[in-house]
Amino acid sequence: MGILCAARFYVKVHVAVQQRIPESMASPFRTPEQRAEERSVKRQAVLRAAVSMFNERGFHATLLEDVAASLGISKPTIYHYLGNKEQVLLECVAIGLERFLAAADEAHQLEGSGLDRLRHFLTLYAQVNMDDFGRCVIRTGPEPLSPEGAHSLRERKRRIDGAMRAFIEEGMADGSIACTDPKLLAFTLAGALNWPARWYVPGGELSAETIARQMVDILTVGLAPRR
Amino acid sequence: MGILCAARFYVKVHVAVQQRIPESMASPFRTPEQRAEERSVKRQAVLRAAVSMFNERGFHATLLEDVAASLGISKPTIYHYLGNKEQVLLECVAIGLERFLAAADEAHQLEGSGLDRLRHFLTLYAQVNMDDFGRCVIRTGPEPLSPEGAHSLRERKRRIDGAMRAFIEEGMADGSIACTDPKLLAFTLAGALNWPARWYVPGGELSAETIARQMVDILTVGLAPRR
Repeated sequence: MGILCAARFYVKVHVAVQQRIPESMASPFRTPEQRAEERSVKRQAVLRAAVSMFNERGFHATLLEDVAASLGISKPTIYHYLGNKEQVLLECVAIGLERFLAAADEAHQLEGSGLDRLRHFLTLYAQVNMDDFGRCVIRTGPEPLSPEGAHSLRERKRRIDGAMRAFIEEGMADGSIACTDPKLLAFTLAGALNWPARWYVPGGELSAETIARQMVDILTVGLAPRR
Repeated sequence: MGILCAARFYVKVHVAVQQRIPESMASPFRTPEQRAEERSVKRQAVLRAAVSMFNERGFHATLLEDVAASLGISKPTIYHYLGNKEQVLLECVAIGLERFLAAADEAHQLEGSGLDRLRHFLTLYAQVNMDDFGRCVIRTGPEPLSPEGAHSLRERKRRIDGAMRAFIEEGMADGSIACTDPKLLAFTLAGALNWPARWYVPGGELSAETIARQMVDILTVGLAPRR
């Protein structure tokens, strides 16, 4: 029996044994799947603790020691799961960026006019800005990052801007959006909806969703009354 | 002759001599006014060099040594004219805040509806956000500051928000502004017009004034076409 067959045989027996024996006698050794799952749960816990500290104190004032202490672990444990402080930040930013891109995908599926899709995207976009990972994307400038980190952040932010621009252009084409300069319009919308990343505090009078909807309404109808 | 009279006599003679004698023989000693003027010019030069470095590199990555070097002076000279790095930052922020408040005063003088005054204020506000000192106000969060510094910054930012809110409420009262939640409207407008502090680069395709006017137009008419 070659090594590979032996390995396969071992896995089969191991799983079979685990399934047959009562809980109290189950193998104390975890399966590869269990180990991967546990690793992912631990990484997520570190990232959630870190992102909330980055948002509250800023990147420079956040110490990985404090993030570790909040989870009852040591700094080397964070190095083991995620790497150094910049790598932890980049990972938080990556999660936030994924949420923005998922918002664009969801809006893209929607039936209706360009304005409908843009409004749907903007409402989700504003909500991502009020969750910890989205907020971290907005609050992270290039300053604390290495040149490669800053480049990667810029590239991914550009994809989100591109998605917003595409919805605007669809709406201009079908007549549902009034616009002369899509680039400036995208900047205006993004700025308005990025701002909650700086002032929103969870648990306030209005929910993130209500704030998002009302801001998008303001941007849709404008300041001047429609008569 | 008492000491005061002697001093007055000295000043008179000193001024008289300065006026009578040819330039080449003028006193090498400066008058108190000249000294105050020179001090102010030097402070301004330090502040301009510092603000541009804060905006470009961030507060933490800016070293007063580098600010000093860019002016051909030493770090203790900056301490002498302005104090430590936080004091230099607070001074830059104070200049920016003054410009925002001056914009509110100018708009306040304007004849017309609440919307007219708000639009005028917003257009100036956006332009201040694109100059170095205004940009520094927006880019400075409470993180790098001492608790007193952060408190003072927050208080002064609140005055600007208050000015914007007042224009909105005037416009709601005279029917020139459509709004259900003035607080959320103020946040939406401020966010949109603060954003250029993060992306505007002087010398680009559009001037700061053009960008400001176009953004205010977008916010006034909204996304949806007016039919």
